[in-house]
Amino acid sequence: MYRTHTCGELRISDVDKSVTLSGWVQRVRNLGGMTFIDLRDRYGITQLVVNSEAEDTLSQEVRNLGREYVVQVTGKVAERSSKNAKIPTGEVEVITDGIKILNSADLPPFTIEDETDGGEELRMKYRYLDLRRNPARRALELRHKMALEVRKYMSDEGFIEVETPVLMKSTPEGARDFVVPSRMNPGQFYALPQSPQVFKQLLMVAGYDRYFQIVKCFRDEDLRADRQPEFTQIDCEMSFVDQEDVLNTFEGMTKHLFKTLRNVEIKEEFPRMPFADAMKYYGTDKPDIRFDMKFVDITETASGRGFKVFDDAEYIGGICAKGCAGYSRKDLDKLTDFVKRPQVGAKGLVYVKYNDDGSFKTSVDKFFSEEDFKAWADEFGARPGDLILILAGEKKRTLTALCELRLEMGNRLGLRDKNKFSPLWVVDFPLLEWDDETERYYAMHHPFTSPKDEDLELLDANPAEVRANAYDLVINGVEIGGGSIRIHNDVLQQKMFKVLGFTEQEAENQFGFLMNAFKYGAPPHGGVAFGFDRWVSLFAGVESIREVIAFPKNNSGRDVMNDAPSSISKAQLEELMLDLKGEAVKKATPQ
Amino acid sequence: MYRTHTCGELRISDVDKSVTLSGWVQRVRNLGGMTFIDLRDRYGITQLVVNSEAEDTLSQEVRNLGREYVVQVTGKVAERSSKNAKIPTGEVEVITDGIKILNSADLPPFTIEDETDGGEELRMKYRYLDLRRNPARRALELRHKMALEVRKYMSDEGFIEVETPVLMKSTPEGARDFVVPSRMNPGQFYALPQSPQVFKQLLMVAGYDRYFQIVKCFRDEDLRADRQPEFTQIDCEMSFVDQEDVLNTFEGMTKHLFKTLRNVEIKEEFPRMPFADAMKYYGTDKPDIRFDMKFVDITETASGRGFKVFDDAEYIGGICAKGCAGYSRKDLDKLTDFVKRPQVGAKGLVYVKYNDDGSFKTSVDKFFSEEDFKAWADEFGARPGDLILILAGEKKRTLTALCELRLEMGNRLGLRDKNKFSPLWVVDFPLLEWDDETERYYAMHHPFTSPKDEDLELLDANPAEVRANAYDLVINGVEIGGGSIRIHNDVLQQKMFKVLGFTEQEAENQFGFLMNAFKYGAPPHGGVAFGFDRWVSLFAGVESIREVIAFPKNNSGRDVMNDAPSSISKAQLEELMLDLKGEAVKKATPQ
Repeated sequence: MYRTHTCGELRISDVDKSVTLSGWVQRVRNLGGMTFIDLRDRYGITQLVVNSEAEDTLSQEVRNLGREYVVQVTGKVAERSSKNAKIPTGEVEVITDGIKILNSADLPPFTIEDETDGGEELRMKYRYLDLRRNPARRALELRHKMALEVRKYMSDEGFIEVETPVLMKSTPEGARDFVVPSRMNPGQFYALPQSPQVFKQLLMVAGYDRYFQIVKCFRDEDLRADRQPEFTQIDCEMSFVDQEDVLNTFEGMTKHLFKTLRNVEIKEEFPRMPFADAMKYYGTDKPDIRFDMKFVDITETASGRGFKVFDDAEYIGGICAKGCAGYSRKDLDKLTDFVKRPQVGAKGLVYVKYNDDGSFKTSVDKFFSEEDFKAWADEFGARPGDLILILAGEKKRTLTALCELRLEMGNRLGLRDKNKFSPLWVVDFPLLEWDDETERYYAMHHPFTSPKDEDLELLDANPAEVRANAYDLVINGVEIGGGSIRIHNDVLQQKMFKVLGFTEQEAENQFGFLMNAFKYGAPPHGGVAFGFDRWVSLFAGVESIREVIAFPKNNSGRDVMNDAPSSISKAQLEELMLDLKGEAVKKATPQ
Repeated sequence: MYRTHTCGELRISDVDKSVTLSGWVQRVRNLGGMTFIDLRDRYGITQLVVNSEAEDTLSQEVRNLGREYVVQVTGKVAERSSKNAKIPTGEVEVITDGIKILNSADLPPFTIEDETDGGEELRMKYRYLDLRRNPARRALELRHKMALEVRKYMSDEGFIEVETPVLMKSTPEGARDFVVPSRMNPGQFYALPQSPQVFKQLLMVAGYDRYFQIVKCFRDEDLRADRQPEFTQIDCEMSFVDQEDVLNTFEGMTKHLFKTLRNVEIKEEFPRMPFADAMKYYGTDKPDIRFDMKFVDITETASGRGFKVFDDAEYIGGICAKGCAGYSRKDLDKLTDFVKRPQVGAKGLVYVKYNDDGSFKTSVDKFFSEEDFKAWADEFGARPGDLILILAGEKKRTLTALCELRLEMGNRLGLRDKNKFSPLWVVDFPLLEWDDETERYYAMHHPFTSPKDEDLELLDANPAEVRANAYDLVINGVEIGGGSIRIHNDVLQQKMFKVLGFTEQEAENQFGFLMNAFKYGAPPHGGVAFGFDRWVSLFAGVESIREVIAFPKNNSGRDVMNDAPSSISKAQLEELMLDLKGEAVKKATPQ
C-alpha cells in the first residue's frame, strides 16, 4: 500500500498515529540539524521532519532528494511547535522514519508555485508540470464540479443527455468545418460538429422532449486570443415550449450554478433587455451591467452649432463618469489616446467637466455656452464633480467606441469587480442581418430561428425590422450562451429560405434532410447553447479560456506540448487516397 | 402554454381537472359514436375521448387526424369505464373539448410500436422515427442514467473528470487513426484519439491522482457487427496504487451500477481467474461463467489408441452437457454442423452418451472400451443422463471451437439468462504476444504495461512467460473493460522497448514525448477503460451496441440517415492543400 493518508488529510486528532504518505517533494529546508520537507499531492501539503544529523540511511536518502521527486514516507504524526494556520494540515508534522524514492525528477523548467516564473509558452510546453500548480488544479476542479452540477440540475429537470455523432456530415453554411477523410469511402469526408444543432432538432422530432449534452464542438476558424479549435458546449433543446419557458428553465440552471459553485444566491429575476436597448444604451449586444453609466444620445441638441465634428456626425453621444471632474489634462489625454486606438476607433474625445463649484470646463467652449452644458448635464444626470465624455461620428462605429470607453471607465472606477455577477437576458434580436458585400440577408442566429408572431407581416416588406424569438445570456459583459425558438411550420420555413435568397433547389440541397424529418410530425421546440469553457473561466476569475482547458492549443491551433498537428506517413496518405499539394508538400516534414 | 401536464402524468386523483396536453397521435379508434385517441409523448400515453357524432368543429378536426400528427388538446380528466392496468394513466381519460393540430405528419415508413414492421436498414434511415419507439427510448434513457451514476460514483470516490483533446497527435502504433488535415498547418494532420491513454498518464504526472472521463474514442478499423468508428469509453487512471487497489475501486463502481441500474445487489467479491485458467477451462479470455461446463483435457488418456483424429491431435478435450444423453441423431448432426462452421472451425465432433441405464453410446466405440468411457465420465464428472462432447486438433484452434460449442450448449440448455449477471476479473495476462509474421513480440495491452515483479527475471530468457499487471472485467462472456498498472520506472521502460524490438531512436520517436514527461517525477499509476456502449447494451439486454447509440453508423462507417461521409467542395480541398487521387476522384460525387 502506497499510503494510509493523503497529504491533505492529517489533523491534530491524528497525533501519534503511524502513517504512510506518498507525494512530490515541494521544498526541502535544513534548520538546526533538522530537515523539513513539504510533501505535496493533489489534496494538500504535509510537513515531514527528519533528524538530518543522524548519520543513518534515512538522512542519507534525504540528502538525495530534489524538487519534485516522488517519494513514499513512513512516520509518526506529531504536533508542530510552530504551527502554520494557512494550511489545514498546519498543526501537525510527520516525524519520518523511512523514505523511499519512488521516482527522481529533473529540475522543472519553472517553479511549481501559485505565482510561477514560467511564461505562458513554457507553461504550455510543459503543461503537465503547469497543471501541478494550485491555480491550474483549482480551475480544472471547478470545471469538473460545474459539469457535475449542470448534469445534476438538468437531469432533475427531466432532461436526458444524449451523445450525438462526432463524425457527421459536412455542411457548407456557417463557419469552416474540420473534415475527416474516410478510408472506407474514398474521396468522401466526415465533418466534426460545429454544434449538434441538426441532431438536437432531430431528437425533438423523435419526441425526446428535453435534451441536453455537454459536448465538444469544433470550428476551423482563424484563432483569436480567446478561441480554441475545439471547445465545449452545454447544448440544450426542449419541445412544446415558447421563449418564456426556455428562459425560465435556464435562469433556474444559472441560479443553481451560481449557488453551488460561487455561493452566490440570486433571488430576483434576471433583467431582460431588448437588443435595441442594449445597442442604444451600451453599444453592444452583451452589456456589462455591473455598473450603470448608460449612453446619452445628444445628437439632436448638440448638432447644428457650427462645431464641424458634431455637425457632420450621424451620432453624438456620451457617458457620465461620476466624480471624475478632477481628471487632469494628462488623464484626459490618456483617455483620448485610448479612444483613438484602432481597436476602439474613435477620432477624438470631447469632455465636459462639471466642476464642484457648478462651473464647466470643456474642450468645446468655443461652440457651446454654459447654458448648453447645463442642459447636457441634465440629460446625462450629471452633478457637480462629474465628468461627461462625448464621442461623435458614424453611428455604429461610435456606439462601439463608446462601449469600449464605458468599459474602460468602469475599470478605472473599480466598477467591474470580478466577484460581482450581473446576469442579463438580451432578447428580441433581429431575425436577419443584411450583408452589403453579397447583397443578401443572413440569419443572425440560424435559418431555423422563428420570427416573432407580431412581426410576421414585416417579413416581406421590411425584413430587417423583423425581430426573432432569439435570446442571449450575458454575464458581466460576457456572452455565455444563446438560443432561439425554432420554426416548426413548413410554410414559414420555406418563406424564410426565400428571404435568405435560397432557391428551392439550394434549400433542398442544404437543409432537405432536416426538412424531410420535419414532415413526420415536428413539435414546436427551441433551445440554447452555452459556452462551457467561457462560463468556467468567468467563475474561475481567469482571463483566458486556455486556463480552464487541460491541454489547450495555441493561436496557430498547435498543441505545443506534443507538437500536434504533425505530418503523417506516406502509407497513411495512400490509404486515404490523398495527395498533398503546393505548400503542404514542403511543410510536411519528411517521414 | 403548450401543456399543463405530460401524457404520462394524469392519475385518478386528477379527475375533474381541466388540462392541456400536447403530443403525438399514436392511434385513433372509433367506437359507438365516440372517438378514442391515444396521445403519446416521452412520458407516456393518455387516452382522449371525443364525441364524434356531434357535427361540430372539434369532431371535424378529429377526422383530419392521422398517425404521428402533433396536437395540443384541452379537456377535463374523467375516470375511465374500462380501465387499462398496463399503463400508469390507464384509470383516466381526457374528455376533450378542443384540439389544435400543431403539425401534420406524413405516414411513417414503419409502425411506431415496440415490435415494429421496419427492418434495421429502414429504421436507421429514419432513425428519428425509430427513436420514438419505446425500446429505443428506454435504451437511451438507461444510457443517460448510467453515465450519471458513473459520474456520481466516481466523483464521490474523489475522481475528477478532465476533458482531454479530440484533436491530438497521430501515433503509428496501435489501430489505424482517423486524421484531420490542418488548414492552418498545411501538410500536417491531427488524429482523433483511439483512447486518451497518453493524456491520462500525463494527468498522473501532473498529480491529479484520480482521473476519469466518459469520452468519445475513434478507430478507423474495418467494422464488424458490433464495432463503431466512434465509441464511448469510461476512461480512468489512479496514482499510488497497485493492481489490488484498482480492482477494488472498480469492483465498487460495478456493484454500484448493478444496484442503481439493474436493481441487482452483489454482495460477494467478483471471482478472479488467471488468464491461463480462462484459456484452459473456457478457451477464451472472456469466459461466460453464468454456467459451469468447464473443459476437461483428456489429451493424455485418449491419445495413442489408434483413433487417428485423436492420435494426431495436439489437444483433445470436451465438455459435459448435463441431461443431454437423450439427444437424437439429428440433434447431434446439428451440433456437428455447428462445430464445423468456418467461424467455429472444428473438423468434427465426438460424442459420448452416458445413458440412464449406465451404458454408453458413442461415436468412437471402435477405438475405446466401456471402461475408457467410464474413466472419461469420471474425469468429466458426468452422470447417467449426461452427454460428453469432445473436440480434438491443434490446441489453440480446438480450445476456441470448444468455447463456441460450450456457449451453444449454454444457449440450448437455457443457462445464459440475460437477466442473470456473472462478473469476473480475468487477471495475470501475458505481457507479450509473439507475432510469427513480423517475428517480434507485441505488447498484449500496451508498451507501458508493467510486468509482475516476480516474473521480472524471465524478461530476458523467456519473455513469453512473463505475466503482466493487467486485468479485464468480463460480465457474461462480454469484455466490459480492461487495464493495467503502468511502468513508472525509466530503466524498466527502456528494457521493455528493447524486448519489443524498438531501437532507441524508434522508441524516442514514438514515445519520447511521454518518456520525457516521466522524467519530471512520475508517480506509480495504473488504470482501466470500460466500453460504455457495450456495458449499456449488456444492461439493456440488447444484442448490438447500435441499439444504444442515438445515431449509429452502419458496417461501412456510413450514417445512412444523413448520408455521411460525403464529398466536400473543391474550395475546401484547395484550402486544405489536398488532392484526391485514384479511386477517390471517381467516388467523390461531382460538386
